[in-house]
Amino acid sequence: MSGTTRSWGLRRHVDGAPSPDDFAVAETPLQAVEDGMFLARTIWASVDPGMRSTLSGGDSYSAATPLGAIIDGFSVAEVIESRHPNYAVGDLIATGGGWREHVLSSGRGYFQKIVDRRVPLGCWIGVLGVPGMTAWFGLNRVAQAKEGETLLVTSAAGPVGATAGQIGKKLGMRVVGVAGGPRKCAWLKDEAGFDAVVDYKAESDLTAAIRAACPEGVDVLFDNVGNAMIDRVLPMMKLRGRVVVSGQVADYNTPVEERPGLRHTDVFITHRVRMEGLVVFDDIRGFAAAQSQMADWIAEGSLKFAIETFDGFDKLPEAFCGLFRGENFGRRLVQLSPEPA
Amino acid sequence: MSGTTRSWGLRRHVDGAPSPDDFAVAETPLQAVEDGMFLARTIWASVDPGMRSTLSGGDSYSAATPLGAIIDGFSVAEVIESRHPNYAVGDLIATGGGWREHVLSSGRGYFQKIVDRRVPLGCWIGVLGVPGMTAWFGLNRVAQAKEGETLLVTSAAGPVGATAGQIGKKLGMRVVGVAGGPRKCAWLKDEAGFDAVVDYKAESDLTAAIRAACPEGVDVLFDNVGNAMIDRVLPMMKLRGRVVVSGQVADYNTPVEERPGLRHTDVFITHRVRMEGLVVFDDIRGFAAAQSQMADWIAEGSLKFAIETFDGFDKLPEAFCGLFRGENFGRRLVQLSPEPA
Repeated sequence: MSGTTRSWGLRRHVDGAPSPDDFAVAETPLQAVEDGMFLARTIWASVDPGMRSTLSGGDSYSAATPLGAIIDGFSVAEVIESRHPNYAVGDLIATGGGWREHVLSSGRGYFQKIVDRRVPLGCWIGVLGVPGMTAWFGLNRVAQAKEGETLLVTSAAGPVGATAGQIGKKLGMRVVGVAGGPRKCAWLKDEAGFDAVVDYKAESDLTAAIRAACPEGVDVLFDNVGNAMIDRVLPMMKLRGRVVVSGQVADYNTPVEERPGLRHTDVFITHRVRMEGLVVFDDIRGFAAAQSQMADWIAEGSLKFAIETFDGFDKLPEAFCGLFRGENFGRRLVQLSPEPA
Repeated sequence: MSGTTRSWGLRRHVDGAPSPDDFAVAETPLQAVEDGMFLARTIWASVDPGMRSTLSGGDSYSAATPLGAIIDGFSVAEVIESRHPNYAVGDLIATGGGWREHVLSSGRGYFQKIVDRRVPLGCWIGVLGVPGMTAWFGLNRVAQAKEGETLLVTSAAGPVGATAGQIGKKLGMRVVGVAGGPRKCAWLKDEAGFDAVVDYKAESDLTAAIRAACPEGVDVLFDNVGNAMIDRVLPMMKLRGRVVVSGQVADYNTPVEERPGLRHTDVFITHRVRMEGLVVFDDIRGFAAAQSQMADWIAEGSLKFAIETFDGFDKLPEAFCGLFRGENFGRRLVQLSPEPA
């Protein structure tokens, strides 16, 4: 393989909401595939709100992405050249390849071979990938969710939220979602089987609307939004309720001192509330079993997902920046090259 | 037994910091001891910051104490008349008797007979009572504290904090305390064996001082202060750190909307931090075993405690109100009648 390959890096560190101008393309020669290495072409690349946390300069807790370094992110790729004993040409892999056309690797790090072809390829970086695993382990390990409990999911039409709600239904929970706009809300009720959905764009008193949808209170809050949402729901938490801090899309672009604060913290004592976050790679040893169960559900049609696709490498920054304007409906994937036949 | 008995109730609901004027004495006839009942005279009554949460009117999450109802609180009492098969005259009990001279009861609720007389009676509502049990179960059950970890305790010279720090030392932790003033700090280092103590009254940059005392970060924050302290420490939490919400003395007097908020909530995801509160009566089945171990430590001199005593029923409101001005050094107990010989 010779020629060049393209990737996206940071032109400057992001301040506030990200804009496509924050990113810049680099074109570099394709390196030769040496012994023990393989080369894969990216088919699908994903954009995640969580990626935002590494894009600031100074005071982020996460390690900052250096200027020019390739933007991280999950991708599905096909091996097109291999001198690695475990990878053959034609192998399909899910990996953290980032925003680039080609991945040249020794196989160290996160590489999962995709062998179950019953589900669309993009599912492996969506409902069966990090968002889906976050939903699964957030509910099962972190929240220890149980039959008969009330689950409130925020950003419920997003890939994490929609999956969490449906897993909650399968666990026998009463599931309430918060989402924006009639299209998302209708999909959650009619397709994903949520018991109730609150449209935050249509409610003048969101707190009252959530309370009305959860008249007995909330056992598990699965939050993908951030502090303002958690603080709103804390007073509704039931005894021994759990708050799963899954994502903070509303706070990632805001400096710490300007973020809304959690104030209804009495409930941590009075109601023995537990709040805990997760980074799903801690659970990587459990991925295969969870994915196998979820792939069965997808194949039988009982686990729904929404994918929004963008066409072409050039669209990556635009697809990402729109996440912070609540534009996305389901998992956003960008197609960089064709799927194999 | 005939005559009258006195108790303290609320004259008005408390707004902000409590004042002795918020309380009023009621004098009522002593009821006859009927079959299945016993009567005890209160020897020691305690004042706890946590009692504040039920003293407001409207919007508290805890049930409000009605005007005139007896103020809750823990006490040590001696049975002076009994028609109950399990209680004999002369029995000593620890109970939630509240601020009153006599307790007339059927024995339902929290009544623990005091049989181990190796330790001072007041210990049973102090280092071996709710404060001590909060320390024990907060560290062992909630935090799952482990040898080699760093424990940061706030309000460290209070009865919960001082006990938590010493239990942490016995677990093999490195223990750092935050307390106010040279007397408390010296006691924590010289008597209670803390590894380091930060005097919040002497530090112009408390955050930097805590960071210097915990150079590798904090595994367990055992907080008795409230949101401002927790938010200050959150950025210092280590991977999989635990925040035990034990008490919120700085926030009890403040309306929710004026409380400091938790803003450094990124760490719940980036560092997988878990925050959880406790009400120690959830662990009541474990009290006896914990008390037995701790009484051994007290008897052998390896678990220290400080008690501040006030003399007489009249002093109850004053002893309580001073807690919110940081005046107390150790457990505050008010003596209502003499200890038995």
